[in-house]
Amino acid sequence: WARAVRGLLLDVSGVLYDSGGDGGVPIAGSVEAVRRIKASGLKLRFCTNETQATREKFVKKLQGMGFDISVAEVTAPAPAACRILKERSLRPHLLVHNDLVPEFAEVDKANPNCVVIGDAAENFTYANLNEAFRVLIGMEKPVLISLGRGRYYKETDGLKLDVGAYMKALEYACDIQAEVVGKPAKAFFESALAEMGVPPQEAIMIGDDIVNDVGGAQRCGMRALQVRTGKYRPCDENHPHVKPDAYVNNLAEAVDILLQQL
Amino acid sequence: WARAVRGLLLDVSGVLYDSGGDGGVPIAGSVEAVRRIKASGLKLRFCTNETQATREKFVKKLQGMGFDISVAEVTAPAPAACRILKERSLRPHLLVHNDLVPEFAEVDKANPNCVVIGDAAENFTYANLNEAFRVLIGMEKPVLISLGRGRYYKETDGLKLDVGAYMKALEYACDIQAEVVGKPAKAFFESALAEMGVPPQEAIMIGDDIVNDVGGAQRCGMRALQVRTGKYRPCDENHPHVKPDAYVNNLAEAVDILLQQL
Repeated sequence: WARAVRGLLLDVSGVLYDSGGDGGVPIAGSVEAVRRIKASGLKLRFCTNETQATREKFVKKLQGMGFDISVAEVTAPAPAACRILKERSLRPHLLVHNDLVPEFAEVDKANPNCVVIGDAAENFTYANLNEAFRVLIGMEKPVLISLGRGRYYKETDGLKLDVGAYMKALEYACDIQAEVVGKPAKAFFESALAEMGVPPQEAIMIGDDIVNDVGGAQRCGMRALQVRTGKYRPCDENHPHVKPDAYVNNLAEAVDILLQQL
Repeated sequence: WARAVRGLLLDVSGVLYDSGGDGGVPIAGSVEAVRRIKASGLKLRFCTNETQATREKFVKKLQGMGFDISVAEVTAPAPAACRILKERSLRPHLLVHNDLVPEFAEVDKANPNCVVIGDAAENFTYANLNEAFRVLIGMEKPVLISLGRGRYYKETDGLKLDVGAYMKALEYACDIQAEVVGKPAKAFFESALAEMGVPPQEAIMIGDDIVNDVGGAQRCGMRALQVRTGKYRPCDENHPHVKPDAYVNNLAEAVDILLQQL
C-alpha cells in the first residue's frame, strides 16, 4: 500500500491526539510523525470533521500540543459549506456551536433559504430545534446542509449525541434528505485532494473511523489506512462493508513504513 | 362503508376538537355527535396518541368542552406501554412530559433496562437526550419504546417537532429500531378493539391522520374514515399508499350516515 504515494490526508482527532481532559493529549509519536512527513517532501492535508470551533481555534489547540500545523493546511466542513452556500446563493439559518459562527461571517444570513446544522452541543435546545424545523418546513423544497453525519462521540463527562442524530430528526420531520458536507462526502475528500494538488491514486487517507475516514476515502479512489488509536475498536476489523488497505498501530508506524518506500 | 357496524374508534385531536388557544375548541357538531353515538347503542372508544398529559387531565379538558367522555373509555399510549413494561419486566428510563409521569407511578424504574420516549416537549433538552442515549448505548441490546411516531404538530405559537423526530435521533445514534406504542401500531388498535369487545370487521376508525389513523386501522382489518377537519389536507386524498373507505366532512356527518344505516 505504501508505493507511489505523493500526498497524505490525516484525520486529526484519534490520529494526532485524543480529546478529553483539558482539550486533549497527543498520541505517542504523532507530533514527530507530522514533522517527518513534512521533512520528506510528501504533500499533507489535515482532514477533519471538527465543527465545535473555528479552524483558527482548533489549530491553536494542536500547536499548543506541539504539532506543526497551520490553518491553511486544514480541510474542515464549515469552510466547505461556505463555498457551497456562495455557489448556490444559499442564505443559511445556522444551528451550530457558538464557537463556529465566525466561520460564516462572510455569508449572507438574511431571509434564510436553507438550514446548516453542525455539532451545536449546548445549542441543541428544544427551542432551537423547533426553530430550525420551522425554517425548513416553510420552504417549498427544504434544503438541509449537515456538517457531518457522526452518531456520537466521547467527552470526559460521557458520550454525547453528534450532529448526525439531530440531522436525522430534522430529516424525518420534514421527509427530506440532508446534504452532508465533511467526511464521508466524496466532494469533501476531492476538495482536500485538489488543495494538495494530488490525484486520488497517489494519495492515502489515514484515520481512526472505519466508515467516515476509510470507507469515504476509498470511494474516492484513494488508499486508506485505519490506525488502532482513537475510536478504533477491534470489531472494526470485521466490518461488513469496509476493508482498509492496511491496519497500522498508530500514525508513527504508518509514517515509518511510508518513508522506507520513498 | 356504514353497514354491519357495532363499534367506533374515534381519534380525539382534530376529530373532537382543535387544539390551540386555551387548550382547544370543539369542532362544530362533535359534542352532539358523541352523544348520539352513545344513545345509539354502538360501542365506542376514544383512541388517542396524546402523551403530554395523564388520561385524567386529558379527559377533564374534554369534559370542560362539553364532551361525554370518561377515563375508562380512552385508549392511550402510556397505559399500553405500562402493560408492555410489566409483561416483559422492563424498568424504564423515562424521557416524557412531566405531566405524563404519573401514568408510570406503578412501574419499577430502578436500574433501567429500557428507555420510554414520549412527546417530552420542554423536557427534550440536550442533557436529557444525551442521558437517554447513554442509558440505551450502555445496554447489550438497547430497547427503545416510543409513544407514537408523529413528525410534528401545530400549537398556537407554531409548529413543534413531535416524538417521532427524537425517536429517529436515538434510533440512528444507537443503530436500533424503536418499538412504537400508540397509533399506527397494530397491537394498539387491537387492544382498543378488545376493550370494546368488537372484532375488526365490525369496527370503524374515524380520524384526521391519513397514515396513523386510517392506514393503521385498515392494516388491522378495520374500515377507516378520514374527516376533513384537524390536520387533514386536500393532498391527503392523493396519498400514494393509503385510501380511506370514505371521506366525511366531519364527525357529525359520519354519525349521520352511520345512524341512518342502523
